[in-house]
Amino acid sequence: MMMSLPTNHWGLYTDLYELTMAQGYFFCEKKDEPAAFNYFFRTNPFHGGFTVFAGLQSFLEVLSSFTFSESDIQYLKDQGFNNIFLQFLEGFRFSGNILSVHEGEIMFPNEPVVQVEGNILECQLIESLLLNILNFQSLIATKSFRIKMVAGDKTYAEFGLRRAQGTGALHASRASAIGGASSTSNVMAGKSYHLPVSGTQAHSWIQSFSNEIDAFRAYAKVHPENTVLLVDTYNTLKSGIPNAIVVAKEMEKAGNRMQAVRLDSGDLAYLSKKARKMLDDAGLNYIQIIASNQLNEYVINSLLKDQHAPIDSFGVGTELVTGKADAALDGVYKLCEINGTPRMKFSENTEKMTLPGKKQVYRCYDNNGMFFRDAILLQDENPEEAETIFHPVYSEKRTRINMLKKEPLLHPVVKNGQVVLKNKTPGEIHQYLINRSEKLPEEHKRFISPHIYKVGISPNLMEIRNQFTAGFE
Amino acid sequence: MMMSLPTNHWGLYTDLYELTMAQGYFFCEKKDEPAAFNYFFRTNPFHGGFTVFAGLQSFLEVLSSFTFSESDIQYLKDQGFNNIFLQFLEGFRFSGNILSVHEGEIMFPNEPVVQVEGNILECQLIESLLLNILNFQSLIATKSFRIKMVAGDKTYAEFGLRRAQGTGALHASRASAIGGASSTSNVMAGKSYHLPVSGTQAHSWIQSFSNEIDAFRAYAKVHPENTVLLVDTYNTLKSGIPNAIVVAKEMEKAGNRMQAVRLDSGDLAYLSKKARKMLDDAGLNYIQIIASNQLNEYVINSLLKDQHAPIDSFGVGTELVTGKADAALDGVYKLCEINGTPRMKFSENTEKMTLPGKKQVYRCYDNNGMFFRDAILLQDENPEEAETIFHPVYSEKRTRINMLKKEPLLHPVVKNGQVVLKNKTPGEIHQYLINRSEKLPEEHKRFISPHIYKVGISPNLMEIRNQFTAGFE
Repeated sequence: MMMSLPTNHWGLYTDLYELTMAQGYFFCEKKDEPAAFNYFFRTNPFHGGFTVFAGLQSFLEVLSSFTFSESDIQYLKDQGFNNIFLQFLEGFRFSGNILSVHEGEIMFPNEPVVQVEGNILECQLIESLLLNILNFQSLIATKSFRIKMVAGDKTYAEFGLRRAQGTGALHASRASAIGGASSTSNVMAGKSYHLPVSGTQAHSWIQSFSNEIDAFRAYAKVHPENTVLLVDTYNTLKSGIPNAIVVAKEMEKAGNRMQAVRLDSGDLAYLSKKARKMLDDAGLNYIQIIASNQLNEYVINSLLKDQHAPIDSFGVGTELVTGKADAALDGVYKLCEINGTPRMKFSENTEKMTLPGKKQVYRCYDNNGMFFRDAILLQDENPEEAETIFHPVYSEKRTRINMLKKEPLLHPVVKNGQVVLKNKTPGEIHQYLINRSEKLPEEHKRFISPHIYKVGISPNLMEIRNQFTAGFE
Repeated sequence: MMMSLPTNHWGLYTDLYELTMAQGYFFCEKKDEPAAFNYFFRTNPFHGGFTVFAGLQSFLEVLSSFTFSESDIQYLKDQGFNNIFLQFLEGFRFSGNILSVHEGEIMFPNEPVVQVEGNILECQLIESLLLNILNFQSLIATKSFRIKMVAGDKTYAEFGLRRAQGTGALHASRASAIGGASSTSNVMAGKSYHLPVSGTQAHSWIQSFSNEIDAFRAYAKVHPENTVLLVDTYNTLKSGIPNAIVVAKEMEKAGNRMQAVRLDSGDLAYLSKKARKMLDDAGLNYIQIIASNQLNEYVINSLLKDQHAPIDSFGVGTELVTGKADAALDGVYKLCEINGTPRMKFSENTEKMTLPGKKQVYRCYDNNGMFFRDAILLQDENPEEAETIFHPVYSEKRTRINMLKKEPLLHPVVKNGQVVLKNKTPGEIHQYLINRSEKLPEEHKRFISPHIYKVGISPNLMEIRNQFTAGFE
């Protein structure tokens, strides 16, 4: 059993300690104690000013299959788990409630993105699954949207399958589309998530013919509606572009139009300018130029804005689907309440302390309708009564929010184990992201030293937090 | 359809262009032309001196399922593929031959790691699948073995599921074990690949009780055989370790022994020394210390060798399963022969040029039985007649190899579409890696500026390469 992942039972897709703790809760008679956990991250990836939340639908879909097969139970028995506990696991299903911000929402460090409420055993068991899916898709959606921000009206295709981290490729394609990729090369992802698929030919196609022009002609003949020619197999300007021009003229005679040429090596700014001129001089200004080769948001920005490279579309692979240079979002899942009592985690590292209690996040708007502050309140606080919010650590820093329009961000998506979220396509989620990002001031979108978006906590939340801290000083 | 990956048909797990090219080969009547492709990488990851090859068995397993379901065919029809071609695809199965180096082999840039031989259509179609699996597992096995090299006789567990790139987590666990991880936290990976699983409790377990010592006692009661206590929830030295000592003494009275304490924050060198002393002073020298928190090979090396931290075992997550700071191995798959004629790829970038022809790689040993050079020969050359090998680019650099013991590295693993490789467990593959690494001179194992292991080509291979180059100058 290797790639052949289960389709029905995902219960074992978890860290062992979730199961040893679950057995512990079970035998300590704590399993029915009501609890709440928050999912949040501590740092925006890529030294950026925000994070795009993604992966919610994928998580909820698997959550419905977070059950244990007969052979899973047997496996756990072989690992030494107790029979009585395993009988309980056989019938396990998550039956609690989940609140979440919308997929595609723009979020900031340390604010609750998801709140899971249920008995402690079930909340605990789904931790690894939740983190695995939400951390990765949020990382990639953020990376993709950074590319979208610099690409502007130029399109970019995700084609990272060959360098993706195993079958993580599939979620990478979905998250890339949420961030703004116009298509994917990954056919299975295309089929699974209803994404446009794209791709034409590799160097091996060109090399499999005796010469380049025969390879171009053959491809144009088989795919006349969608001819994109890879022009760098031998020499882009001396061979690839001249041959492409010949074939484009031949296509015109047959009533067809070549779609594009693709540059995949060399200096893309230099080559695209030369190629554009050669194509234009040949009367082929409709042929687009696609560029690929180790691209990321910085290179694309430089090509378009600094060098004015006449590139119409990009193919982005490795860095997009792996989130290079950050390989992971540092999202965590922390207990915030048990038996109606708030809980917080202390730590040797101050930045690892958590916020106690069930919470709601309110986005506060300025008078121009732009995002201004996020306010974390206890769940049952009335936002209209919140006058001032405080910096979570430095309480002398505060902001008045009483006159501001406030919008709650956490919404029910699972009630008593039943998913109540209406599914959206990645394209619809991307549109939501675009709408939200228009309300995010530009200074938070900068790549270099972006302005920090302020997230504050209510006086009530601060008081509970301070009671805990005082108790352990 | 999201995580629910197919179990039977993996044909769509490919880049679209493999399919558009396949349709091209089909209608150009090239589909039965014999071809050969090489898989190789261009750079060792992590600025290291070698790469551990992994993923072969996973790849071969999926290759057997690289077929198209009825709904896949319908999907491709909707994408505009031709009916006649799709009828052909319905019955598609890879029927060629594959040669590969052993899984766990230590390999170097630009030498063939896998050679695929068959008709051009089938060789082309499996490209994305091959690259996806081999690139990722080789990356992670290499990362894991780097940790193994510094951990020495200390063990380390892989527990990266929560930060892994989606379901890439499963292959990450397998490859980590090949590199040397003693266990994984990922239960599904443990079941799938017969890996030891490990894990105890999270901070949430501790927090779910009114106080730390109750949480410790409860855990020890439920898991007396395997009690590992997380001691940093409140304060490691003032609360965690003292409470652990109390519980360990209570366990002793009941005839049990606490296994370990785990440090998960703070300065691990400082805390481990203090904790070790406190445990030893209490007569508990059998209690081990496990450390985790953003570890990698550099931090572990520093902890053990520079700071002599008394840590017995490590938990390594994010950086191990994602291969941070390198998110991908840059492996490629290039046509080297068609219709019996060698082929090579030119490029605007010299380092992207390839070696033509079907090849065999020989590892040459020095008189002490250590790896000395790798020699790339044409497949039908007699290695005993090879006197001198040349640097692939600078032909004035050469090495005599006629007196050296030579070992062929590429072995048949698929014949006429049938897998002929005998499966090994990740543990067996790790043992093979250990045996091989003992023959790799130390200077190639350094983290900082490792000595470059020399790979040369035979005069015959050089001549073919030069003929191509001359033709395009």
